Amino acid sequence: MTNQSKVGIYKNVAEPFHVDFTGRLTMGVLGNHILNSAGFHATERGFGIATLNESNYTWVLSRLAIDLDDMPHQYEEFAIETWVENVYRLFTDRNFAILNKEGKPIGYARSVWAMIDLNTRKPADLLILHGGSITDYICDKPCPIEKPSRIKVNSKDCIETIKARYSDIDVNGHFNSIRYIEHILDLFPMELYKEKRIKRFEMAYVAESYYGDDVSFFMDEVNPNEYHIEVKKNGEETVCRSKIIFQ
Amino acid sequence: MTNQSKVGIYKNVAEPFHVDFTGRLTMGVLGNHILNSAGFHATERGFGIATLNESNYTWVLSRLAIDLDDMPHQYEEFAIETWVENVYRLFTDRNFAILNKEGKPIGYARSVWAMIDLNTRKPADLLILHGGSITDYICDKPCPIEKPSRIKVNSKDCIETIKARYSDIDVNGHFNSIRYIEHILDLFPMELYKEKRIKRFEMAYVAESYYGDDVSFFMDEVNPNEYHIEVKKNGEETVCRSKIIFQ
Repeated sequence: MTNQSKVGIYKNVAEPFHVDFTGRLTMGVLGNHILNSAGFHATERGFGIATLNESNYTWVLSRLAIDLDDMPHQYEEFAIETWVENVYRLFTDRNFAILNKEGKPIGYARSVWAMIDLNTRKPADLLILHGGSITDYICDKPCPIEKPSRIKVNSKDCIETIKARYSDIDVNGHFNSIRYIEHILDLFPMELYKEKRIKRFEMAYVAESYYGDDVSFFMDEVNPNEYHIEVKKNGEETVCRSKIIFQ
Repeated sequence: MTNQSKVGIYKNVAEPFHVDFTGRLTMGVLGNHILNSAGFHATERGFGIATLNESNYTWVLSRLAIDLDDMPHQYEEFAIETWVENVYRLFTDRNFAILNKEGKPIGYARSVWAMIDLNTRKPADLLILHGGSITDYICDKPCPIEKPSRIKVNSKDCIETIKARYSDIDVNGHFNSIRYIEHILDLFPMELYKEKRIKRFEMAYVAESYYGDDVSFFMDEVNPNEYHIEVKKNGEETVCRSKIIFQ
């Protein structure tokens, strides 16, 4: 198999209700397109969620890091390329390139996924499942951005608490991975988005939260351009962490 | 021009992060697809927002009513047909059919739009603009649902107040029409969505709200299946009203 056939490419357009006040696609919507691309790519190759659910396994997103030089503008076409970089026993690394309307990369993303057994909630061995066929798709296309980092938040001062509502909950009954991104973006004032854009955005998904949970946000301002955020449910357990670098 | 060529049809798929805990597309996402279809259809015929903005006019959505027998499930393809029913001096009626993966209608929608001059904020005369060419697209395809109704809310008890944040604001600096729908859906408990589905959803957009506004919600429970909602900004001015009928 050539590298070319291992890489999926999926076209999109920046829809009017998916851009922010600057007219650029929001990070939440880009995250949605990135995760959709992962799903399409896996499904086309026989290891997508729909197939897996039938055999009682599902993919769980563990890490996502997006690094951008630009963001598509309203009505602009863009595309997302995705490929598998590595497969380990319990994790797989999947990378992405975001291409502008001319097909030039304007950013990249890295993600880390595990597969779990829906009955036991335990991770599955990726090298055994489906005869390890996922390893046939490993591809050495370069992804010139840093790997997801370890995020540590020291602040004990909750800056915001929301209650998980109907619109926050996905088909699995969990707080939707994309909605965390939107709520995190909403911690920052409009003025910041007027002056700066997001250069890098990282998410580390740690645990699930559910309908009715109190979801609280804690933030360290590492410097005027870098923020580390921790999200906890019901005042205790960490559900995810995020790092945002503006420029 | 035949009716067929006056009707636009746009295909979509119910993406994983766009369905709710029941696995069905959310009303907010369907609303987004409906408004996108309106935009595509108008743009292809030379009276879309991008074209109009250049000449300093823009479409403003006044009313939206969606009536459904079913909602697409996760991963299912669906399509939206749209056409112009009527053009008056200050308003135009645009209708929609929502087709399931077999191409059968599972619901319809009606919308009412005005066009305003971006400098004066005054409505434009649709029968004069672009030589009145929009009237060439009037089409007598049936739309067998009730017209948007007049919504009246008596309650003076605010049941929820949110602050308009970054993710709520669209490219015009206004509270995003789709985000109102999501916030309204979030007024209802999960239990209701477990037992019932939304049969009819109406929005009447009255005024704009902006970043930082306090947006409050008032609700009349007309009967256990029918709710009327009024949304006000900063405790005073009505920004929109909504009617939801469950079954």
